[in-house]
Amino acid sequence: MKLPKGFLGSAVRAGLRKKPGLDVALLVAPEGANAAAVFTKNLFQAAPVTLSRAALKKSGGRVRAVVVNAGCANAVTGAGGDAAARRVQQRAAELAGCPREEVFVASTGVIGVVLPDEKVRAFLPDAFARLSAGGLEAVSRAILTTDAAPKVASATFRHGGTTCRVVGVAKGAGMIHPNMATMLAFVTTDAPASAPLLSAVLKEAVDGSFNAISVDGDTSTNDTVLLLASGKAGGSRLRSMDEAAAFRAALAKVCGELAWRIVRDGEGAKRVMEITIEGAATEREARLAAHAVATSSLVKTALYGGDPNWGRILAAIGRSGARVSTRSVSLKAGSVVLVKDGAPTSYREEAAAKAFARERVPLVANLGVGKARARLLAADLGHEYVSENADYRS
Amino acid sequence: MKLPKGFLGSAVRAGLRKKPGLDVALLVAPEGANAAAVFTKNLFQAAPVTLSRAALKKSGGRVRAVVVNAGCANAVTGAGGDAAARRVQQRAAELAGCPREEVFVASTGVIGVVLPDEKVRAFLPDAFARLSAGGLEAVSRAILTTDAAPKVASATFRHGGTTCRVVGVAKGAGMIHPNMATMLAFVTTDAPASAPLLSAVLKEAVDGSFNAISVDGDTSTNDTVLLLASGKAGGSRLRSMDEAAAFRAALAKVCGELAWRIVRDGEGAKRVMEITIEGAATEREARLAAHAVATSSLVKTALYGGDPNWGRILAAIGRSGARVSTRSVSLKAGSVVLVKDGAPTSYREEAAAKAFARERVPLVANLGVGKARARLLAADLGHEYVSENADYRS
Repeated sequence: MKLPKGFLGSAVRAGLRKKPGLDVALLVAPEGANAAAVFTKNLFQAAPVTLSRAALKKSGGRVRAVVVNAGCANAVTGAGGDAAARRVQQRAAELAGCPREEVFVASTGVIGVVLPDEKVRAFLPDAFARLSAGGLEAVSRAILTTDAAPKVASATFRHGGTTCRVVGVAKGAGMIHPNMATMLAFVTTDAPASAPLLSAVLKEAVDGSFNAISVDGDTSTNDTVLLLASGKAGGSRLRSMDEAAAFRAALAKVCGELAWRIVRDGEGAKRVMEITIEGAATEREARLAAHAVATSSLVKTALYGGDPNWGRILAAIGRSGARVSTRSVSLKAGSVVLVKDGAPTSYREEAAAKAFARERVPLVANLGVGKARARLLAADLGHEYVSENADYRS
Repeated sequence: MKLPKGFLGSAVRAGLRKKPGLDVALLVAPEGANAAAVFTKNLFQAAPVTLSRAALKKSGGRVRAVVVNAGCANAVTGAGGDAAARRVQQRAAELAGCPREEVFVASTGVIGVVLPDEKVRAFLPDAFARLSAGGLEAVSRAILTTDAAPKVASATFRHGGTTCRVVGVAKGAGMIHPNMATMLAFVTTDAPASAPLLSAVLKEAVDGSFNAISVDGDTSTNDTVLLLASGKAGGSRLRSMDEAAAFRAALAKVCGELAWRIVRDGEGAKRVMEITIEGAATEREARLAAHAVATSSLVKTALYGGDPNWGRILAAIGRSGARVSTRSVSLKAGSVVLVKDGAPTSYREEAAAKAFARERVPLVANLGVGKARARLLAADLGHEYVSENADYRS
């Protein structure tokens, strides 16, 4: 797949991680792009996160180059980490011929190790030499950590007589959770849009996609979603959320697809639950309840086992802090009503087992106290997750 | 080990669960005992929890008999579950020759199935016939679910020229977490104490023991800690927290020992972390941070692997909602300082690995913003946990 007009990509191996393969990705908009980003809410923000946030602000939402490395998160690394990130940014700015604040950097990998930036800088000229519109595939592989496969999604939309494209690439796996867990996503479009509009559009898309998934409830120090618009498709600039309706739909599709792939790929997950909380007193309580279910180790292991052990789901809701009417609560798995009016129905055990055996298990709990709702996608918790994470560093 | 003076115990097999062994336990104070209890805070409270809470209130804190069953939690079972619990209570009251409200019932096992109370009632006469002071051992086995071993602890203390005993028995394993997860504990003493004093003493002991442990972050619908005092050791009645100082110390020892055994036995745990948060802005924030670390799947799998991946610990703290000074935060594992002033120290990797390889891993994080602290014991998360929980019901 090619990048949208106005973007080039490439990747190189700088030797930041032991396992073979690419580990530094480069995205360039030769004539610049308008940009908006969403970052992790974790208090321990990695050096590249604080640097890129400040750069975006200083440039007024303009980006010429994006440098992403895997193998080292450069988080909790103090002043040494800040300086390393800055040196990468500086070198890329020289090569791109732009001010330093138009270079956006992102990192993923182990926490607590200062980025060996001399390796990244040594291979940056090579990365610039390899830039091409077809470089997306290399970018998609270079940013992965424990992911099983690259994640790319695209959509098109019509705007003023021309067809615009939206192409996104992401990495995820462990630590995926609302509030932007170790997840990086870079979405490019050739649509013409200002940085402020991109901000509004991105926030909406992220809330409905990346912030509605959970692999293990942990959030990372490095998570970043960056949206870049080159405007190279032509046409008049999109000026309002209303005018951007088709763009927003395309962006929602791309982000939703990437989010689904991330949670589906979550640390060896074999099953994903889609937990919908209805009838909550407030939206906050709906999210609390969905979060408690999505992060319950007991629920997630039962999901892994394909075991319709719904008592664990209600127990998680019951400790979540959300108000529940224990007399009118209900729970459905797919089309099987398991609990109604606070008591088990006479459902067939085989029907329940079948609902829990699917790749995607839709669960709907109605708390019976209000009208608010929330929805989360969450991966199961199995042996692959334990194996992957018990010794990630070695 | 014998029960304290004034208590008898026994257990029978009523066939409530498939696997062999005892599944109904009976504790009797032939002349009655003063009592206090702490129950789960989960909104879905099991039928025996609501029934026993009401009974204790009605009897003014007097208990003659305690009936505990494994194999069925009798939770989320609606009116049918309430009636089943009441019939067990009624039958035990007839056999003990006491009012119904002096019978305390507790259940543990699968949620969503009404207790087959006819089985329990059919075997209760046999249980009464087998009562003895040495019945503690049978009681300790009959209440287990996924526990690897029975959990009994005892202590003595001097009061007015006589020696009093405190003997406790507990079950735990999955769903152990602050707010009283699927955990049952019954503590007996021959000390003379009123029900109100027992309430105060029990609350203190539970906060420092059962409410400071975590296996998987889930809390159950059935958790109960019951403290019974027969007064049969003789001596004057303990009248104040000050007078009860020696009793409180003995109770803390018994509850602390049972809590440690529960978390150590947690669903196949091979390692336990003792996470202490210091320097938090408030006690609530200290607990939030400790809770985030104790329930992080990434931290728990690293602990399982003996991997000193401390970045995951800070990442969990950073998303917990507790305020942290990222410039002055520090982290120690045992005597190894891993992070100081917000940056990694030059600790030796082998020293860190050694600290994480112990059975009990003490972790101390100082958030650098205040003086509040909190402490939690938490089990690791490994293959045994997944195997145990992926198909618990079959």
